[in-house]
Amino acid sequence: MIGYAFMGKAHSNAWRNVASFFDVPVFEQKVLVGRDPAGVEEAAAKYGWAETATDWRTVLDRDDIDIVDICAPGWMHAEIAIAALAAGKHVLVEKPLANTLAEAEAMTAAAQAARARGVQSMIGFNYRRVPALALARELIAEGRLGTVRQVRAAYLQDWLADETAPMSWRLNKETAGSGALGDIASHAIDQVVFLLGDRVTEVSGRLHTFTTRRPGAAGMEDVTVDDAAWATLSLASGAVASVDVSRVATGQKNSLKLEIYGDKGAIRFDLENLNELHFLDATAPAREQGFRRILVGEPGHPYLKAWWPQGHIIGWEHTFTHEIRDLLTAIGTGTPPSPSFEDGLEVQRILNAIEESAAAKSSTIPLARTTASEGA
Amino acid sequence: MIGYAFMGKAHSNAWRNVASFFDVPVFEQKVLVGRDPAGVEEAAAKYGWAETATDWRTVLDRDDIDIVDICAPGWMHAEIAIAALAAGKHVLVEKPLANTLAEAEAMTAAAQAARARGVQSMIGFNYRRVPALALARELIAEGRLGTVRQVRAAYLQDWLADETAPMSWRLNKETAGSGALGDIASHAIDQVVFLLGDRVTEVSGRLHTFTTRRPGAAGMEDVTVDDAAWATLSLASGAVASVDVSRVATGQKNSLKLEIYGDKGAIRFDLENLNELHFLDATAPAREQGFRRILVGEPGHPYLKAWWPQGHIIGWEHTFTHEIRDLLTAIGTGTPPSPSFEDGLEVQRILNAIEESAAAKSSTIPLARTTASEGA
Amino acid sequence: MIGYAFMGKAHSNAWRNVASFFDVPVFEQKVLVGRDPAGVEEAAAKYGWAETATDWRTVLDRDDIDIVDICAPGWMHAEIAIAALAAGKHVLVEKPLANTLAEAEAMTAAAQAARARGVQSMIGFNYRRVPALALARELIAEGRLGTVRQVRAAYLQDWLADETAPMSWRLNKETAGSGALGDIASHAIDQVVFLLGDRVTEVSGRLHTFTTRRPGAAGMEDVTVDDAAWATLSLASGAVASVDVSRVATGQKNSLKLEIYGDKGAIRFDLENLNELHFLDATAPAREQGFRRILVGEPGHPYLKAWWPQGHIIGWEHTFTHEIRDLLTAIGTGTPPSPSFEDGLEVQRILNAIEESAAAKSSTIPLARTTASEGA
Amino acid sequence: MIGYAFMGKAHSNAWRNVASFFDVPVFEQKVLVGRDPAGVEEAAAKYGWAETATDWRTVLDRDDIDIVDICAPGWMHAEIAIAALAAGKHVLVEKPLANTLAEAEAMTAAAQAARARGVQSMIGFNYRRVPALALARELIAEGRLGTVRQVRAAYLQDWLADETAPMSWRLNKETAGSGALGDIASHAIDQVVFLLGDRVTEVSGRLHTFTTRRPGAAGMEDVTVDDAAWATLSLASGAVASVDVSRVATGQKNSLKLEIYGDKGAIRFDLENLNELHFLDATAPAREQGFRRILVGEPGHPYLKAWWPQGHIIGWEHTFTHEIRDLLTAIGTGTPPSPSFEDGLEVQRILNAIEESAAAKSSTIPLARTTASEGA
Repeated sequence: MIGYAFMGKAHSNAWRNVASFFDVPVFEQKVLVGRDPAGVEEAAAKYGWAETATDWRTVLDRDDIDIVDICAPGWMHAEIAIAALAAGKHVLVEKPLANTLAEAEAMTAAAQAARARGVQSMIGFNYRRVPALALARELIAEGRLGTVRQVRAAYLQDWLADETAPMSWRLNKETAGSGALGDIASHAIDQVVFLLGDRVTEVSGRLHTFTTRRPGAAGMEDVTVDDAAWATLSLASGAVASVDVSRVATGQKNSLKLEIYGDKGAIRFDLENLNELHFLDATAPAREQGFRRILVGEPGHPYLKAWWPQGHIIGWEHTFTHEIRDLLTAIGTGTPPSPSFEDGLEVQRILNAIEESAAAKSSTIPLARTTASEGA
Repeated sequence: MIGYAFMGKAHSNAWRNVASFFDVPVFEQKVLVGRDPAGVEEAAAKYGWAETATDWRTVLDRDDIDIVDICAPGWMHAEIAIAALAAGKHVLVEKPLANTLAEAEAMTAAAQAARARGVQSMIGFNYRRVPALALARELIAEGRLGTVRQVRAAYLQDWLADETAPMSWRLNKETAGSGALGDIASHAIDQVVFLLGDRVTEVSGRLHTFTTRRPGAAGMEDVTVDDAAWATLSLASGAVASVDVSRVATGQKNSLKLEIYGDKGAIRFDLENLNELHFLDATAPAREQGFRRILVGEPGHPYLKAWWPQGHIIGWEHTFTHEIRDLLTAIGTGTPPSPSFEDGLEVQRILNAIEESAAAKSSTIPLARTTASEGA
Repeated sequence: MIGYAFMGKAHSNAWRNVASFFDVPVFEQKVLVGRDPAGVEEAAAKYGWAETATDWRTVLDRDDIDIVDICAPGWMHAEIAIAALAAGKHVLVEKPLANTLAEAEAMTAAAQAARARGVQSMIGFNYRRVPALALARELIAEGRLGTVRQVRAAYLQDWLADETAPMSWRLNKETAGSGALGDIASHAIDQVVFLLGDRVTEVSGRLHTFTTRRPGAAGMEDVTVDDAAWATLSLASGAVASVDVSRVATGQKNSLKLEIYGDKGAIRFDLENLNELHFLDATAPAREQGFRRILVGEPGHPYLKAWWPQGHIIGWEHTFTHEIRDLLTAIGTGTPPSPSFEDGLEVQRILNAIEESAAAKSSTIPLARTTASEGA
Repeated sequence: MIGYAFMGKAHSNAWRNVASFFDVPVFEQKVLVGRDPAGVEEAAAKYGWAETATDWRTVLDRDDIDIVDICAPGWMHAEIAIAALAAGKHVLVEKPLANTLAEAEAMTAAAQAARARGVQSMIGFNYRRVPALALARELIAEGRLGTVRQVRAAYLQDWLADETAPMSWRLNKETAGSGALGDIASHAIDQVVFLLGDRVTEVSGRLHTFTTRRPGAAGMEDVTVDDAAWATLSLASGAVASVDVSRVATGQKNSLKLEIYGDKGAIRFDLENLNELHFLDATAPAREQGFRRILVGEPGHPYLKAWWPQGHIIGWEHTFTHEIRDLLTAIGTGTPPSPSFEDGLEVQRILNAIEESAAAKSSTIPLARTTASEGA
């Protein structure tokens, strides 16, 4: 594993625990890679890694390494992932796939080539492994919502609501790529595509920065990424999705909200209550229709048999445990894991189109149908 | 109508509006009765009554009066109701039926005799006319909950949470009869009996006064009624109900909560959201079970066709409009309306038994099966 | 009052009851006007009107008529309102102000001229009189939210979710003007302007019709209005609002949802629970911050002292009672009531700009700063 | 650790992860003990234990073992715990402390003697480590609720709602001690005592078995424990608590509900949403009072700094991680950990008194003030 910050901590937790709950192929937590020798030593001890390294290239040469989990910053993804795939290592890369579309395309090409050689790759849209959302996808795929017409997706946080919150690399376009758009709209959009099994054909978007200057190390600095973003997405099926994301939604901590309306039913979800799915069956008699709160904790619910008895809720980090479980299972069976780099590339194309639309007074931008997106 | 305080205002509203929404026999709002001439004049003008009177006896002599609605204090109920029934007037009496069991029994006997002569009577347990609770009863009667085993009933208010709130007649046993027990536990217990169509066979109870002295007109005075009451009720069917009521439940304004658990389903309700019924169908596959929030506003829901389109919620006072509608309909068809004085008497027997148990260290008290309660 | 369909029923209820709860100038429910003699007779009897008329012009000639309440269809508003104002009658007109911008402008000019002569006018955005929203406005005006940055407004219904629901005049652009946009987005947008005390400067919008043909009297007919609409609004203050409205949001019955995020606090509201306001005070210590559910039923809350004790909730139609109360009070004191025709015109300009943007691939459309809107 | 069933799995998870999140004294997961050699081998491999043993006595002789975590069935607790303490091992024992009061008293005496020698002991009421409940205790201890008057505690499950669910050792008094009472009322009662920092002085109780015979290995067998239990508890402070627990509350999966009402504030909690605490501050102006939903995920909330950014919720099993963290910290600093065996004994005395009251028609039973309970 490369990187040991927030995502590294979450991924390590998943690697450390996955085999205690799921039947997965045997593996070892071998090497943790980080640039700072003392830091990486301490993290490895804490998180359960046997060894450390300070240069990720050294790891790719080792025969006893089969999988590389990339939790390094986005601008490093392409170089590491392409090298790792070339070295025959299976690769898991945190989202976003890359900071630029060109890098994402190169990575996807590398993944396709590697896949042909039996080397697998996966992008870490971990919310696909929230059991409630996996259940939502099952219900939609079974036709329980009928024809889906409308989706309302939002991802609301408030860590920038305070205008005196300091400048950071996350607020600089050069280092971060984008703001709320890439960080959280990416999750919301991936869910739209995932849950509906659909494809975005055109977008209209808007970006906005409410606080344009923030205190940095050397006085006030310019914030060069968006605090909030809005979009409407047309889907190939005819459905329309709206997306609202914000880092200044005071009081909303980590609220990925999804509402999906079909002609036979509807679904609601909020990540702050991730053990619950609200489902309405519109084929029931009108007298007894209503959104039902399904506490997703039954043995028959996705991933849940491995955990605790019903009603004993799981937490946010379990989504990574499920992700690693699915990655290991796919590698074990030689099946390409999902979501693929193609899926990650598709999301980035949508984000790019939103930026393009935002720069053109929200005018609608079509998304070209590409061969790469066929894997979506 | 006799009395024009809180209940008089609510009943007047119902009389004034019922014919605008429901097809009911033609009637007129004739006389409002109250002891203070100026006060009753003003109230009659405001609430839509054509005339006023200061002595309720004068009204009973009039041939043009067919129905007497008694909103006077509880200690006056028996005398007025018995006289009105004897005079051949149909009677609606606010709950509680009376302040003493002896009075309640006399009233019930009078109602039975009058009924034989085609003179009808009704006790005002208005929450039986909350559409969501009427729907709950329908579902239970249809067997959607299967065998009901357990009920959790609570009625929580907080207007006595402040220990400096003043002494009043409501806090004096002589004038009020009892405290939270008679005022709100009566509603909760009536719902248990109503929803289950069942009968209480024994009770254990407890009463408590948290603030025993309060500031009165002449200094600190003793509070002689309960602030809160607890009971468990055994029902003839084998079900067990718990009842918790309080006037010191800080932050709870008017929260009558009901939870009913059967072997095939369950129901939850809260009067602060009286347009909603939460229903769980335990015969659905485990994967999709959950309490569904039914917004009770469909044309097929009880009483709702008369009001507004779906989702346009109704308020608390509409329960009285429904009550008057049902009373008028029953009188029009010559059918005894429900709930009857027998039902009111039955609730009072239960309240008395709770007091008796409370005085005997919560020891269980059986309720004799009486002929009166057969109408329940 | 002119018209006795859905809105006529709701307005009548308000006229019939307002004086029972509020101190308002004395008035009488004089004449109900409708084209069908039998229908208007029956409605007048039911709803409490003393007389009927079949031609609204006859009413304008009467000296004993001071106020005209227009609940007739939108295409009749302009003619009646302008004539009534010219005849010196105070006018209340249901929203939308008119079906075309030209008519709305003519009405606004007439209202301005009449106002100079002491003749008042009001547009019926009744949701300004939901106590929880009036409280929200108070809190925002007091600065409790600090600088408002972001608003999320939605109005979701589902009565067109069934694709076999029949064609009607409401789904025809000629008769209805627009679909969800004019019918419900108008309410959502009026709330944005009302709550923030702000002005819209530019919009991007989208309209969509999911079911384009529906069964009519003579076979399948074209639906020519929108089922759903989306918009982003820029406000003069720098805030950004998103608006999502739909008639196909399965399971949502009458859900006007508002979320308002400032740098010092936030507010959430849903019309399906209109007695509740959710308020977050971001100046409290982080440890104890959270959206609090205020049950808007205290004597100190807007309009509530007139009704019932705390926790005894009110219904949807009470918003009209408050509207009539405010209209009568304003007329009584010679003060122009709010919202004015200017406010209604302003909303229609925004709706028109959304339509214009929708026709131009969602490209942003500026709203000219007009003198008329200065009254907003 | 002794035992590797449900609780063993949960405790192992805590031991395996605690050092990855918290700064705790260094330790190793040494030996897992279980009677079945193959089973214990498999569990040790899965759960991270270095060795296995089939006889717990052999472990007590080892010098390299410092702590014994007892997850074996309740009837084994006393023997193992007393022996372990005598051998100088710190002991963590799962609740209930023991199956009989006599055993619990002997264990408490052993713990007191060991404590004098610096050997620590702890009972595993893990819900004291739910961050929201730890926060509730902080707020109550700081006086934010003022004088607590009333508590409503319930623990509702539904795994016995199906009357065809099979007989098991848990439904037999000989093996299980009691039913819902010991299993879940124990948690509810411990919370009452913990949150209020108070002591129970008398109880009234009731037990009931709705399904008295269930299918066993050899035909229908008698269920000899309670399905549901009810109690009212008097507390030394003057507060009164009601307790309702059930295994037949259809649709309730693992719902430990707590409501605490003081004269200055109130708190609500539900274990099915364990990341939330609802707090009402009754000292705020009436206009803005309401239960606020605190999403307990801020760095300043108990235990939360160790986990993820705000809004990234934790799960049920984290309560054990916190428990082990507190145990290790206490051992490291030589401080007696809390809750103590005395606390466990106190809860069992209350449970016994409830059984005694239930056998005496719910008549109130006083709880003797014992020296043992002074540690509470």
